[in-house]
Amino acid sequence: MAGKVDEKAITPMEKDYNEWYQDIVLRAELADYSPVKGCMVIRPHGYRIWEKMHDALDAMFRETGHKNAYFPIFIPLSFLSKEAEHVEGFAKECAVVTHHRLGAKEGGGVEPTPDSKLEEPLIVRPTSETIMYSMYSKWIKSYRDLPLLLNQWANVVRWEMRTRLFLRTTEFLWQEGHTAHATHEESWDEVVKMLGIYARFAEEWMAVPVFTGVKSDSEKFAGALKTTCIEAMMQDGKALQAGTSHDLGQNFAKAFNVKFQTEKSDWEYCWQTSWGVSTRLIGALVMAHSDNKGLVLPPKLAPIQAVIVPIYRDAAQKEAILAKANEIFGKLAGAGFDVHLDDRDNVSPGFKYNEWELKGVPLRIELGPKDLEKGECQGVTRVALTELKEGERVPRIAIPLDSVAEKVGEILDQFQKTLFARALKFRDSKTSVAASYDEFKSKLENGGFFWADWCGCPECEAKVKEETKATVRLVPFEETTLGDKCFVCGEKAKTKALWARAY
Amino acid sequence: MAGKVDEKAITPMEKDYNEWYQDIVLRAELADYSPVKGCMVIRPHGYRIWEKMHDALDAMFRETGHKNAYFPIFIPLSFLSKEAEHVEGFAKECAVVTHHRLGAKEGGGVEPTPDSKLEEPLIVRPTSETIMYSMYSKWIKSYRDLPLLLNQWANVVRWEMRTRLFLRTTEFLWQEGHTAHATHEESWDEVVKMLGIYARFAEEWMAVPVFTGVKSDSEKFAGALKTTCIEAMMQDGKALQAGTSHDLGQNFAKAFNVKFQTEKSDWEYCWQTSWGVSTRLIGALVMAHSDNKGLVLPPKLAPIQAVIVPIYRDAAQKEAILAKANEIFGKLAGAGFDVHLDDRDNVSPGFKYNEWELKGVPLRIELGPKDLEKGECQGVTRVALTELKEGERVPRIAIPLDSVAEKVGEILDQFQKTLFARALKFRDSKTSVAASYDEFKSKLENGGFFWADWCGCPECEAKVKEETKATVRLVPFEETTLGDKCFVCGEKAKTKALWARAY
Repeated sequence: MAGKVDEKAITPMEKDYNEWYQDIVLRAELADYSPVKGCMVIRPHGYRIWEKMHDALDAMFRETGHKNAYFPIFIPLSFLSKEAEHVEGFAKECAVVTHHRLGAKEGGGVEPTPDSKLEEPLIVRPTSETIMYSMYSKWIKSYRDLPLLLNQWANVVRWEMRTRLFLRTTEFLWQEGHTAHATHEESWDEVVKMLGIYARFAEEWMAVPVFTGVKSDSEKFAGALKTTCIEAMMQDGKALQAGTSHDLGQNFAKAFNVKFQTEKSDWEYCWQTSWGVSTRLIGALVMAHSDNKGLVLPPKLAPIQAVIVPIYRDAAQKEAILAKANEIFGKLAGAGFDVHLDDRDNVSPGFKYNEWELKGVPLRIELGPKDLEKGECQGVTRVALTELKEGERVPRIAIPLDSVAEKVGEILDQFQKTLFARALKFRDSKTSVAASYDEFKSKLENGGFFWADWCGCPECEAKVKEETKATVRLVPFEETTLGDKCFVCGEKAKTKALWARAY
Repeated sequence: MAGKVDEKAITPMEKDYNEWYQDIVLRAELADYSPVKGCMVIRPHGYRIWEKMHDALDAMFRETGHKNAYFPIFIPLSFLSKEAEHVEGFAKECAVVTHHRLGAKEGGGVEPTPDSKLEEPLIVRPTSETIMYSMYSKWIKSYRDLPLLLNQWANVVRWEMRTRLFLRTTEFLWQEGHTAHATHEESWDEVVKMLGIYARFAEEWMAVPVFTGVKSDSEKFAGALKTTCIEAMMQDGKALQAGTSHDLGQNFAKAFNVKFQTEKSDWEYCWQTSWGVSTRLIGALVMAHSDNKGLVLPPKLAPIQAVIVPIYRDAAQKEAILAKANEIFGKLAGAGFDVHLDDRDNVSPGFKYNEWELKGVPLRIELGPKDLEKGECQGVTRVALTELKEGERVPRIAIPLDSVAEKVGEILDQFQKTLFARALKFRDSKTSVAASYDEFKSKLENGGFFWADWCGCPECEAKVKEETKATVRLVPFEETTLGDKCFVCGEKAKTKALWARAY
């Protein structure tokens, strides 16, 4: 689909943040709306980001002893019901399979045939605790089988009425880790360890700073004792939950009879965890870094890290320039960079600049006749373009041709750091302590994260949500207060909490 | 799940091939039955094989210009119906989603709520032509957008009444390539190119020799002009279709209005292809190479390529041996091998040998005090164990410790070749020309592939299938005859065909 950049301008984020987000996702060809309500198509440019996320996370899961497996997409209705909170949490958004055959319909077309109705309906998995733990119950016999550390990369379905590309879709892709341990201490260590991996991934790969902590009871996973999370700030000052790690206690172990024989030959229920991140992270990536010119991507996750744009006027120039451009391509590809040589003849360099700017390529490498004479090429980073005013000179970095791979490596490393620093600075500038509930309400209109003391009761949380649409994003692992009173009711504070509006 | 080798003996394949297959799959922990009818669980040892298959194939797809994307799992019922043959082919095996919410059931439990019934039922994708091409119709505007070369790694569902682990399951994992081209010549080239990639993968990675050719009309993909395939022989002499590549012509392009504007500004329908392989390949791998002792895997796809088993009598020996074993592990891991050091203390070396034999590790490396003295370790290949008679001495290969990585590399390369040669020799010994239909029928009882001339009419094909359960596996790309008469009806032969019973 080369050469097809939609000429409609991107809605500026200051004008309409939601429109801006949608424009970026569609025009950078990350995803598209599908004819199936609530489901999206992930296009190659978006899917490649997911593949790079997969590779980075999967390596970290393996290093910590986890193995991948695959469990059925269908869950018998009765399984979902075995853990009371769990079915309560997911019942309202289930895709239900009731038939297994189509037959001719009176008047033409086809329809599900009545005689193929299933005795027990099947649920398309919204998450896999139930189906997986029914197997764990079979596999785990003794303490020697523990810990059992599995992960699954899969699609899941949660029926959504109001959807947004990547952020909230009926079907999405994710990974779900599911582990079983002999003690609660061990399983809690796992919960924290995996949250740490998510935080590291968010900060070091996505260049998105995150707060880590524990969800309030009203926001925890249906069936968990405790949900821990990472929370990131988007450029409109709203929070986005970017990953969760759950302490399931023995709730599911009891529902699915996941028991083991201890060294002393007693039988005990396992202690379990589950943890996941999804294609939602791609939405977070877009919202955290992109600008009004298009996508901005961290080099570690960019499908194309550098694009070479040759510049020439005539056939003689073209030959020399393309020869050198190919040489640069070879050097960069050989050094392991994801590089693209844009040698299209039917569009101008300016058109190419715009296209790759829109698509978020971190580094553009320009190569013209003058550069060739000087034995260099010119690097322009995507991050430098964000601040560039209309009419300002584009900041170019001279890159010597004889050390192009080393220099490109340095530029991309620096880019990754700059992007994180920029996001961190923004988040810190929008994170403050709310001196009072009134101050909180007035400041919240401009977005941001607010630390404020909370008594811990669900009534205060509900009141804030109703009046401001803000929620408790997390409380710290080590509960601590700023002062002594809940900023809502004035009763004794239990802990400070991070409050914000969220996606 | 260490240390839990089921002590029940594997059913010998000569006694009951199907039981043998199931024993291998379950006991080597490749997969397990799930509580969902027809669906299996792919366990880590099996899933790792799929991941290695994915990586090898995906690299070949990329090299040939394909990109990955992801399309919705749900297909509107009306889409499936747009191509007449297509819906006919898949209607009988569809999982149909009809509701999107659960509610309390009278008398307890939950059920799909009547008011959440979908206006149009959704089909869980059995294959994605329809949903993908509805998007292609939107994306493709001009000849400049062609060829469009996409691939998807996904799960699909085809309701199966009689299932077998990996070979035939209601849900399975696969990749499906879907391309659109400007001319039939180009799309046919793609069909042949991708079949070539499958054949290369089967032979060079799986070590399974395959015949390539074209399916008869009765066996082709529902909606295709032509289906090409690779066919492999299992150890019971039956055929297994291991991959298909379809020439879709303009059938789906017409049904989904996938048009492009030519250089001359005319509008034409695209020419399309689709091609896929699935987790069925894991079943093929098991059936092609394994023996009565367990799994035999080609080194290129084995989750663990080499296992180190330390042997010692006392604590002093243990320390020295484990130190050296760790050194070997480091050298092999550093050289890129998937190596495992089995340093369990609670089971004997013999127990470990059996377990890794069962799980198909290509190379076992034994390290005992005498080996240490000599500065070597002992390699035992899994393939050498197949022929080993009870009481015979295990053939050990002395591996010098100072060149362990090089030597292991050589052994594994040789292993890969030996495995292919063994499978090829077996297939060739069971492939012959059928002189007459009677001879064919009698020889078929012992399994095998048979070349025989065919008039090309579906009646003869149906007769053979009814009388012998054998089918036309393929006809050659270049049709050619052995003699001049159809071996069934005696009429003029159109081409020779490969006949066999199949999975």
